[in-house]
Amino acid sequence: MALADTRYSNRRRALSARLAGQRIDMMLVTNLIHVQYLSGFSGSNAALMLSKDLNPQIATDGRYTTQVAEEVPDIEALIERSCATALLSRLEGPRRVGVEADHLSLAQWEGLQKAAGEDVTLVPVRGVVEELRLVKDSQELESLRSVAALASQAFEDLLAAGELAVGRSERDIAADLEYRMRKAGSERTSFDTIVASGVNSAKPHHGAGDRVLREGDLVTVDFGAHVGGFNSDMTRTVVMGKADEFSAEIYEVVKRAQAAGVEASTVGTALADVDRATREIIEEAGYGEYYVHSTGHGVGLEVHEGPAAASGAEGVLREGMTLTIEPGIYVPGRGGVRIEDTLIITPGAPEVITQVSKDLMVL
Amino acid sequence: MALADTRYSNRRRALSARLAGQRIDMMLVTNLIHVQYLSGFSGSNAALMLSKDLNPQIATDGRYTTQVAEEVPDIEALIERSCATALLSRLEGPRRVGVEADHLSLAQWEGLQKAAGEDVTLVPVRGVVEELRLVKDSQELESLRSVAALASQAFEDLLAAGELAVGRSERDIAADLEYRMRKAGSERTSFDTIVASGVNSAKPHHGAGDRVLREGDLVTVDFGAHVGGFNSDMTRTVVMGKADEFSAEIYEVVKRAQAAGVEASTVGTALADVDRATREIIEEAGYGEYYVHSTGHGVGLEVHEGPAAASGAEGVLREGMTLTIEPGIYVPGRGGVRIEDTLIITPGAPEVITQVSKDLMVL
Repeated sequence: MALADTRYSNRRRALSARLAGQRIDMMLVTNLIHVQYLSGFSGSNAALMLSKDLNPQIATDGRYTTQVAEEVPDIEALIERSCATALLSRLEGPRRVGVEADHLSLAQWEGLQKAAGEDVTLVPVRGVVEELRLVKDSQELESLRSVAALASQAFEDLLAAGELAVGRSERDIAADLEYRMRKAGSERTSFDTIVASGVNSAKPHHGAGDRVLREGDLVTVDFGAHVGGFNSDMTRTVVMGKADEFSAEIYEVVKRAQAAGVEASTVGTALADVDRATREIIEEAGYGEYYVHSTGHGVGLEVHEGPAAASGAEGVLREGMTLTIEPGIYVPGRGGVRIEDTLIITPGAPEVITQVSKDLMVL
Repeated sequence: MALADTRYSNRRRALSARLAGQRIDMMLVTNLIHVQYLSGFSGSNAALMLSKDLNPQIATDGRYTTQVAEEVPDIEALIERSCATALLSRLEGPRRVGVEADHLSLAQWEGLQKAAGEDVTLVPVRGVVEELRLVKDSQELESLRSVAALASQAFEDLLAAGELAVGRSERDIAADLEYRMRKAGSERTSFDTIVASGVNSAKPHHGAGDRVLREGDLVTVDFGAHVGGFNSDMTRTVVMGKADEFSAEIYEVVKRAQAAGVEASTVGTALADVDRATREIIEEAGYGEYYVHSTGHGVGLEVHEGPAAASGAEGVLREGMTLTIEPGIYVPGRGGVRIEDTLIITPGAPEVITQVSKDLMVL
């Protein structure tokens, strides 16, 4: 028999503690990533009811009868297609039930209102599980290190094999990088791979198209792997053949800004100050108007999650958070540079888990 | 200057006609796939306001100022981070505004309620754009043929190259197939590739893992490409080395069921009858309890969309719909077979756009 992982019951206890302040008796969790985070269940249809005084309950449909018993041995499972409705309609007596306002459609909300008995009051709640997920436990950090190492190695191997080369298309390079990650155990990309070359490197949201790399191009590669629910995220910019003065200059500025962001990422630092650390350097160099996005975000079960290092951000860095530091300069019609690492926040200097050189690589 | 594509204005007109019956003055479209379908805009943050008597308006943020002007030359664009709120707060006078109840979170709904002036009433509406998307126009059908052909060819090439072979892992085969699709122009997979071998073939939702293919294995490969917004979806099951009696038998039953489903897919046929056509054959062969899912679904901008060919389904097939026919038999502990094509419904026999042989392939 499978043993329950205490990690999940610990998280449920932590959630209960957070809910104590809200005037609710129980919480109906419908976001599937949250269901997985709080129970270990990885199926594609489920809901979870958590309460201070009753045992937790999970619901899923008949496709997952075996899987839910294996993955969640410590919670009674209800097998019903309409998971949330089924859990709600089983409640007895007057109850105030929290629901995830950010992860429930208006139509689902109306359906739950109908399913709830007269005594049941539904209360929209926001951000409590997200808040809990901000700080990762040691197993999560290990998974994140592992997927980041896989992606970093794939990129190193791509370079070593000469696959990032003049004459090849952005698409072919993306295909080769993805293939290397896939063969190494990645289940999918954590987002659509970006290979932005030449003028395309000035577009932060470029994908990977037909453009063929030429001598002198800046080439920005932004990519991630996905293993066992966890994502990686990193960016490197290289230059083909020879860096002209402009390319060498903006590379150097972004590299310094990125290093400053990493250095600033210590426990207790305000997230807005991390953003300021990268932005000041780019502004002082005269490229402030070309740094058109914020500094970084958390990485975990989602590739973009909290915290956010941005100019208006609230809050401070805490031990066990993850954060990308990814400043960039994008000069339309000329070219751009972005350098991105993912960090783990520790009591000392941050741990950089995307270990690839940040010196300008001329290929 | 870019010319407006009349396709989009035609769709907006068709939507207006459908909305005439609802008691609303305008419709706020927030689902990004629907925004793209109705305007051509492909960015990751947008909303669209459509009305019977006023010009349409689109909103997106500053990252997309150039892109929205290029992709949507015929609609005035508002540049604001909170797209839906911005469109709402510009309204004057008493208005009843439809919102997409299935594509708006409860939190977004509450935000819109606050942003709406006193004279504005928000009305939850369901399924109108989805209903419009059921029947594809000729350009959509051409895109769907093209992406299905790309995926079919990649699978043929995988077989021809001997990459689906005893001694290789499910993951490596998935990686090779995805690489071939990627090199041929696919931007990503339309869903996580399934390579389910041996006992794993009995699990309809298996992914692609470490298991190494052995002589006698059934191997089910379910995969799709994604190009320019459009998806493909197909499945073939092959057998390694030699088919034992069980494998040959269930293959033959599924093949007959699949052919019956294709044959039944004519204009005017009830969707429930299409499901019955595949199910009857599997039930008569004594495997009914091992056919644990419905017959098929539409494929388009989403890889799973309407219509649904299932036992309780309502509605009939119409010309220009797409439909997968994908019966399967899954015998736990032994193995399984699924065969899936994507069809276009025509006035005559359906057009099968996933052109790979369905004879049992022994590799």
